[in-house]
Amino acid sequence: MVERVKTGIPGMDEILNGGIPARNVVLLSGGPGTGKSIFSYQYLWNGLRQGDPGVFVALEEHPVQVRINMSQFGWDVRPYEREGTFAVVDAFTGGVGEAAKRERYVVRDPEDVGLLGDVLKEAIRDVGAKRVVIDSVSTLYLARPALARRTVMLLKRILSGLGTTSILVSQVSVTERGFGGPGVEHAADGIIRLDLDEVDGELVRSLIVWKMRGTAHSMRRHPFEITSKGIIVYPDKVVRLGRGFRIERTEG
Amino acid sequence: MVERVKTGIPGMDEILNGGIPARNVVLLSGGPGTGKSIFSYQYLWNGLRQGDPGVFVALEEHPVQVRINMSQFGWDVRPYEREGTFAVVDAFTGGVGEAAKRERYVVRDPEDVGLLGDVLKEAIRDVGAKRVVIDSVSTLYLARPALARRTVMLLKRILSGLGTTSILVSQVSVTERGFGGPGVEHAADGIIRLDLDEVDGELVRSLIVWKMRGTAHSMRRHPFEITSKGIIVYPDKVVRLGRGFRIERTEG
Amino acid sequence: MVERVKTGIPGMDEILNGGIPARNVVLLSGGPGTGKSIFSYQYLWNGLRQGDPGVFVALEEHPVQVRINMSQFGWDVRPYEREGTFAVVDAFTGGVGEAAKRERYVVRDPEDVGLLGDVLKEAIRDVGAKRVVIDSVSTLYLARPALARRTVMLLKRILSGLGTTSILVSQVSVTERGFGGPGVEHAADGIIRLDLDEVDGELVRSLIVWKMRGTAHSMRRHPFEITSKGIIVYPDKVVRLGRGFRIERTEG
Amino acid sequence: MVERVKTGIPGMDEILNGGIPARNVVLLSGGPGTGKSIFSYQYLWNGLRQGDPGVFVALEEHPVQVRINMSQFGWDVRPYEREGTFAVVDAFTGGVGEAAKRERYVVRDPEDVGLLGDVLKEAIRDVGAKRVVIDSVSTLYLARPALARRTVMLLKRILSGLGTTSILVSQVSVTERGFGGPGVEHAADGIIRLDLDEVDGELVRSLIVWKMRGTAHSMRRHPFEITSKGIIVYPDKVVRLGRGFRIERTEG
Amino acid sequence: MVERVKTGIPGMDEILNGGIPARNVVLLSGGPGTGKSIFSYQYLWNGLRQGDPGVFVALEEHPVQVRINMSQFGWDVRPYEREGTFAVVDAFTGGVGEAAKRERYVVRDPEDVGLLGDVLKEAIRDVGAKRVVIDSVSTLYLARPALARRTVMLLKRILSGLGTTSILVSQVSVTERGFGGPGVEHAADGIIRLDLDEVDGELVRSLIVWKMRGTAHSMRRHPFEITSKGIIVYPDKVVRLGRGFRIERTEG
Amino acid sequence: MVERVKTGIPGMDEILNGGIPARNVVLLSGGPGTGKSIFSYQYLWNGLRQGDPGVFVALEEHPVQVRINMSQFGWDVRPYEREGTFAVVDAFTGGVGEAAKRERYVVRDPEDVGLLGDVLKEAIRDVGAKRVVIDSVSTLYLARPALARRTVMLLKRILSGLGTTSILVSQVSVTERGFGGPGVEHAADGIIRLDLDEVDGELVRSLIVWKMRGTAHSMRRHPFEITSKGIIVYPDKVVRLGRGFRIERTEG
Repeated sequence: MVERVKTGIPGMDEILNGGIPARNVVLLSGGPGTGKSIFSYQYLWNGLRQGDPGVFVALEEHPVQVRINMSQFGWDVRPYEREGTFAVVDAFTGGVGEAAKRERYVVRDPEDVGLLGDVLKEAIRDVGAKRVVIDSVSTLYLARPALARRTVMLLKRILSGLGTTSILVSQVSVTERGFGGPGVEHAADGIIRLDLDEVDGELVRSLIVWKMRGTAHSMRRHPFEITSKGIIVYPDKVVRLGRGFRIERTEG
Repeated sequence: MVERVKTGIPGMDEILNGGIPARNVVLLSGGPGTGKSIFSYQYLWNGLRQGDPGVFVALEEHPVQVRINMSQFGWDVRPYEREGTFAVVDAFTGGVGEAAKRERYVVRDPEDVGLLGDVLKEAIRDVGAKRVVIDSVSTLYLARPALARRTVMLLKRILSGLGTTSILVSQVSVTERGFGGPGVEHAADGIIRLDLDEVDGELVRSLIVWKMRGTAHSMRRHPFEITSKGIIVYPDKVVRLGRGFRIERTEG
Repeated sequence: MVERVKTGIPGMDEILNGGIPARNVVLLSGGPGTGKSIFSYQYLWNGLRQGDPGVFVALEEHPVQVRINMSQFGWDVRPYEREGTFAVVDAFTGGVGEAAKRERYVVRDPEDVGLLGDVLKEAIRDVGAKRVVIDSVSTLYLARPALARRTVMLLKRILSGLGTTSILVSQVSVTERGFGGPGVEHAADGIIRLDLDEVDGELVRSLIVWKMRGTAHSMRRHPFEITSKGIIVYPDKVVRLGRGFRIERTEG
Repeated sequence: MVERVKTGIPGMDEILNGGIPARNVVLLSGGPGTGKSIFSYQYLWNGLRQGDPGVFVALEEHPVQVRINMSQFGWDVRPYEREGTFAVVDAFTGGVGEAAKRERYVVRDPEDVGLLGDVLKEAIRDVGAKRVVIDSVSTLYLARPALARRTVMLLKRILSGLGTTSILVSQVSVTERGFGGPGVEHAADGIIRLDLDEVDGELVRSLIVWKMRGTAHSMRRHPFEITSKGIIVYPDKVVRLGRGFRIERTEG
Repeated sequence: MVERVKTGIPGMDEILNGGIPARNVVLLSGGPGTGKSIFSYQYLWNGLRQGDPGVFVALEEHPVQVRINMSQFGWDVRPYEREGTFAVVDAFTGGVGEAAKRERYVVRDPEDVGLLGDVLKEAIRDVGAKRVVIDSVSTLYLARPALARRTVMLLKRILSGLGTTSILVSQVSVTERGFGGPGVEHAADGIIRLDLDEVDGELVRSLIVWKMRGTAHSMRRHPFEITSKGIIVYPDKVVRLGRGFRIERTEG
Repeated sequence: MVERVKTGIPGMDEILNGGIPARNVVLLSGGPGTGKSIFSYQYLWNGLRQGDPGVFVALEEHPVQVRINMSQFGWDVRPYEREGTFAVVDAFTGGVGEAAKRERYVVRDPEDVGLLGDVLKEAIRDVGAKRVVIDSVSTLYLARPALARRTVMLLKRILSGLGTTSILVSQVSVTERGFGGPGVEHAADGIIRLDLDEVDGELVRSLIVWKMRGTAHSMRRHPFEITSKGIIVYPDKVVRLGRGFRIERTEG
């Protein structure tokens, strides 16, 4: 029986037949505005509530802003930081600025993936992390796509080696249909794709689990919503994009 | 309750559920002739009328021409410049020419983003700006696309850090469906796309809010017009581009 | 009330609500064989007949050939050259050849945009030009696309600064749907696109005004013809390209 | 009244309203197997029969092979070569080989366009050529596309300057829809496109005159055949490529 | 009568008319999540059960993880390793780490294809391998696509020369329709493509044998499933992808 | 009356109106698995049986493997090699290996096209070859596409100059619709394209003669099969690829 980590996101664990298999490194891929950060905040927050310590690696935003973003959904991580079960790794400021001085885990040179790995390992060990989010890995190889596979491989060794179940946020362009390039797609244990499509003048949100090592999973595209309390996925509905689109209730 | 900045553009604030959340950095993306500059002039003008000081960074046109363009819609910013609540940052002339000598905020080398940032900070502080427009950010990395993300990140830190709610105009080619590249799309807090499409021999104007951090928003494509008094958006109509197109009145 | 320059091309000024707003720099974009040169000859000739002095910058053909081409439509510019109200700037020969020695305005090195600008300024001032055509600007950056925006910006400053209303001919490939690249499309005050499309075995000519600063304009694609007397545009017909095509009389 | 050069190809001159306007430089563009060389042989041969001396510049095949190819259609150019009204310019062998030693006009280095121009001028003057074919110009810039426009401009000056009416064969790939690139398409006075399309399991030959300076011309796509006596064009039929295809007799 | 190697994968040998012809080097090509690794584990395991020794070259995962992955399907290779009929070649760790020290076949520098070839030869000879899998070859030339053909040629010489029947796993991007590039596609003796397609909101698994030297094979696309016991192929059903999709029972 | 070389492939000579015109250099183009090598083996074998000596240039496989491949169809070339009417040129091994030492015609450096040409000339003269196959020419310029035209031109001069009728195998990617690039397509005297298309879940084999200098030929796409006795073409059937496909018996 495979050990599973529940995302806690309503509807999501049904789609995953019970949750993400433990130690998997999952690529969470999507264009701008698809809800990747919210999904990963919610994954960490639900972990904290269930007793899973967690680490968030901030590459796109100031750690202070990350905490504010989370609190807008009612997810206040500061008590967990104080009790030592949650940590934000600051790979954004480079340690520059007043606020940055108050951060505990700072990657001085975010371009240095080895250094990032070291700080990440320290944070995981300190809090005894079970869940990790890196938001986003794309930033690490945006200017050097040839390094994508090597970077993801290195992170995977750390994340899986230290026993965490992790999400790597992968930013793709709004016009791109892939998941972040061949080197990345094949290296991940799982791929969840979030989509925002304009169909006949309406924006439609849906997600699909493209692969997930160690478990069967829904083979359908499901609608989801972003609410003031986070993401809600509808495991019993399927989105059929084509001419116009239909959301249908599924039989099974 | 999120603080909001009203665009004042008829119909636009309904689409945004009350306005742009304060401190957001919004990418205003569109092809040639879509009305990006008019939208951003109108945003600043409506701010001035409500008591929000503002700054316009001119990268595409001579500051003198910017004032003329605005006055053609009846928006005379000179009184506000005199009373110190509005400023144009000249990042166009490089300080060359008679007219340029009369400008107060001049970026000597518009290719130097750091210098642009410094002049921008000075202008924002001097007028106590609540609203800023940069027209356009694309110019800053047109010849160096690898710098796009870094440039937008730098501006975002200044604009958000100083408490302004800002619009970054993003020029895309008429044949391009994205918003300005992956580095830019993901860095912005919001994306508003203006479109001009030829459908069956007719040019059709529409806009869509693709993302907006901190608020729900219309998930539909809405028609708009450019009139002699500026832009009017129709929040109760939806544009369905497909074979031919339809503009329908929506129920909700 | 905006000052306007009438093109004098039958049907065209109706489409432009009375003509091109004065001082606008208009991109006239189209593939091979679409009639760009004829359109711009006709624009200058109609100006001369109404008393507007003009300048034609020849980058694609020998000045002698330009005069022959124009005379084939009955437009003999030589009397106007003699009385000093029309000039051809020779940016084609580099001053090499017998005929070139008889030209008054010669750009010795057509690759040197600064030099071109100087000769252009001289010609505009000498004849007191109200209308200018550059045929084509594409030649100036064909081999150096990164220079496109800078080149167009420089010309725009001269042309608009000296009070002329001008047409920049932009050559695009027969398979290209854009107007000449992002740097160029956004820099122009107006864009008129001429098209030649094969539809169901027939070649169809049409034009569309994509943008025009300072005026409303037809938002439709109109058919036009090239006759022995020049171009005739049909403002009361619309071309709907799709499966096959239809030319319809419009109601309004 | 424009002077015209009759191609003599059955049906072709009707399509051109009487022939190619004198001194025009015409791009004859098409993919492999479309009949470009046959069209240009026939153009020269019909000239010889009507008393127009001609020059063929061989860049793709050995001059000996060119003469054999022509003779397969019954077009024996050797008598005309002997009487000095026809010449083949050998830009293929570089003067290497026994047969090459017997050629009169040899371009020692076919990569040197200036040298090609000099030999071409000599041949044109010697035979008093009225018609010239260069088969193909594509070879001259295949490896250096940035030189395409300059090369065509140089040839155009020679060909038009010496009073000839000429055909430049332009090879495009079977998958390419253009005519040979923007620099070339716009430089030519005329463009004739030969096509070979597979439609529903059948190969269909058709041609279209895309542009022709100095004359009106058919605005339709016409079928043609390659027979043992050369090309026959059907000016009263039109090819409509779409789903399947139709060849229809036209009314006018 | 051609000698054949049975894959043992239910349904697969029917499709191959009895199995893979001996000594063939087969490209197993597919996007992320298509089941390439599972297919190749199953191929080796079934060999072991029938008495065919085998070698697995691990380029994508730690040898320890490979054994775990296989055991999740009930395929425990350790007894075979102990008795000397199965070997994992570690081309993943570079010999770094505790676990790696326990591996017998280690490629110290996985970038060195010559070295990989030497270790591979040693392992094949030691176990007397009949079946070999390399997972994946794509990794060997991801950063140097110009080397793809040479790499595959070198491996082919070893694999075929030593009498093995082998599978080269080829990773392609989710958006790529080819099999891994021209140099690779033509070099392989056989190509099996695994696909995962989203059709109308459902993920569909299918495979097709594109070529297989030395045997006739099914010319149809067949559905397959991934179960807890490995892959099951349905030789009597065909997948027709088009608008929506159909899975039909075939007559023959 | 043009001299013709019969391919001897059932159905193929009907399509070619009697065979390939003598001395033509024919490009045989197709993706992986389309049967290019089988077609060319069969062409040579049928020649040997009719008394035409032949040469096969092996660039993709070991000469030993080539002989095995041919024998699988019952085509044993060894007696012809012994009697001196058939030769394999080894441009694969570089002379390395035991088996290679027994080959008579070895190209020591297959990257050196000049050297290849010399060995080819020697082999042609020795056996008095009437038919030559080079499998494949693509290999010669895979890594240096700019050399494609020059390489093909050089081979063409040798092959045609020595009086042979030859086939150049051109490998294209499975996703490529061309024949091997513009430089190659135009240089060949004939083009035969072999296709393998997936249509509605079924693989369909067909071929089309795109061009053939010196003869009329079928202008249709014909189905063919690969059997244990080689290729069979159906000249009286046509393949119409479209939505689904149809194979129809043709009237003429």
